[in-house]
Amino acid sequence: MLIGFNEAEQFLRSCTDAVIITHRNPDGDCIGAGLGLHDILSEIGVRSRVVCHDSFGARYAFLTEDYTEEDFEPQTVIAVDIADTQLMGSYEEIYGKRVQLCIDHHESNKGYAERTLLNAKATAACEVIYQLAKHMGVNITTHCAMCLYTGIATDSGCFKYSCTTPEAHEIAAEMMRRYDIDFARINRAMFDIKSRGRIRLEAELSSMMEEYLDGKLVIVAVTQDIMKSMGVSIDELEGFAPITIQLETAEVGILLREREDGVFKCSFRSANDVNVSKICQTLGGGGHAKAAGCTASGDIASIKAELTEAVRKALEG
Amino acid sequence: MLIGFNEAEQFLRSCTDAVIITHRNPDGDCIGAGLGLHDILSEIGVRSRVVCHDSFGARYAFLTEDYTEEDFEPQTVIAVDIADTQLMGSYEEIYGKRVQLCIDHHESNKGYAERTLLNAKATAACEVIYQLAKHMGVNITTHCAMCLYTGIATDSGCFKYSCTTPEAHEIAAEMMRRYDIDFARINRAMFDIKSRGRIRLEAELSSMMEEYLDGKLVIVAVTQDIMKSMGVSIDELEGFAPITIQLETAEVGILLREREDGVFKCSFRSANDVNVSKICQTLGGGGHAKAAGCTASGDIASIKAELTEAVRKALEG
Repeated sequence: MLIGFNEAEQFLRSCTDAVIITHRNPDGDCIGAGLGLHDILSEIGVRSRVVCHDSFGARYAFLTEDYTEEDFEPQTVIAVDIADTQLMGSYEEIYGKRVQLCIDHHESNKGYAERTLLNAKATAACEVIYQLAKHMGVNITTHCAMCLYTGIATDSGCFKYSCTTPEAHEIAAEMMRRYDIDFARINRAMFDIKSRGRIRLEAELSSMMEEYLDGKLVIVAVTQDIMKSMGVSIDELEGFAPITIQLETAEVGILLREREDGVFKCSFRSANDVNVSKICQTLGGGGHAKAAGCTASGDIASIKAELTEAVRKALEG
Repeated sequence: MLIGFNEAEQFLRSCTDAVIITHRNPDGDCIGAGLGLHDILSEIGVRSRVVCHDSFGARYAFLTEDYTEEDFEPQTVIAVDIADTQLMGSYEEIYGKRVQLCIDHHESNKGYAERTLLNAKATAACEVIYQLAKHMGVNITTHCAMCLYTGIATDSGCFKYSCTTPEAHEIAAEMMRRYDIDFARINRAMFDIKSRGRIRLEAELSSMMEEYLDGKLVIVAVTQDIMKSMGVSIDELEGFAPITIQLETAEVGILLREREDGVFKCSFRSANDVNVSKICQTLGGGGHAKAAGCTASGDIASIKAELTEAVRKALEG
């Protein structure tokens, strides 16, 4: 059942001992939403615990270092930024069927929860939670403001991407005016710094960029041999697809990673208006308009030719 | 003389045939401020021309393509985003002593103009110009909004840096609500895309990163021999200093470029709180807290040792 702020407030004010589930492969939005909601529940005297299938990682230490996990048997189950119970990982089995409240911003939300507070136009789940906290008139601590800012900043690419809403900017302005958040330090941690390994891999992958269709298509193809010589696994090359559209002429970028002999995972990115989800659908895959994927098998030269042809058609389309 | 919005409005409404000067090595803020003010003057029936010592470059084509330069003898001289007439380049001699209005956001503004509309707290000159346009009640065209958004976004690092004001966010929100600007495309052009040459150089310079002081200091040293082998001039390595602070542990980064035999240009960047201007002052240079520079002479090993020692002292504070 879709609910509004009034019902969400009523539910939160009457609940006890809540577990707040965040999605696997956690990002700034679900971490900020989980810890931010934890702070809000503290303010109204409700004990809560934030859980995730994966660990939050050192990048988010500035949000997690003051968080202490309390041990209790949950009476209330809340999910944040989770469109589908599958994204809960190991927590799906425990809590998937008894989520009482879900707070989300994904249009694709499956409606698995008893109550869903959904704003599919919001930049981030943290935007919805901030609006809920204001609606409730709850005191927002500096830590809570940092959590919610982090979610809004990360989901919008620091206000860069088309998903950024005017509300996201207005909330950022309010957070700067009212709460003493060191947003520049948050943004440096989220956007500017890289590990040694990441810097090295970006440099190596950048040097492998191949241009097709007058530079409108960029392909970076990483075979198993190349991974071996670079000393990395296929998983360590997760998250590098965006570098394929850094070239100024690129409309589409594809990162190919050889999963097993002759089978390639193809990660597509669109720089502007080309819908790569549609391209991937013609190749048996799918995804979003700006980020999609498919699998391709065969020798690398034929795969590149096939992908180039599919992109050429889309560009002409 | 420092003036307010009322006097600035009065001046603009009564002026004719204006030349708008932007600074040399133009950036998004002076280009946006110049072209944005041109649009505003058009709305109130004042002819104007935007001039710059250097060309605006292809990156800004989305702002310049609809701009046609009119030929007339200027009666009014306006400077935007220029703290000192020296920054006018060749236009200093022609107009430097007769600037009637300067609109700026630099605290260091020398007060060279007859009238200066200055907000040293503003993120960008474009923020001041937007507020002036609103004060005047002038119609803001989509093109004008794009110009002013570009200036605010570029000077704030897309709302990332500590210089970002709540007003900058509020203006961005207003621009998204009221005018049909494709901010995502602007941001991609300003922040995400790179030329082939830049991608190659970033990859090469990243691979040359040396860590000192437990990774708190990163030095990238480019000798003349290395430039020769890379096929680049010292000028082509302008603007790469920020890559020295991309490493997660870095507090200070230094890009060294050998200008002539044994003489190195040292460009310092601070990741967080270290004041690199102070460090550079001890080495005979200067600059800003987060970006400064100096010159060092001698063999490269001694220079690195000297710079490391200076940074070590600053870190110990």
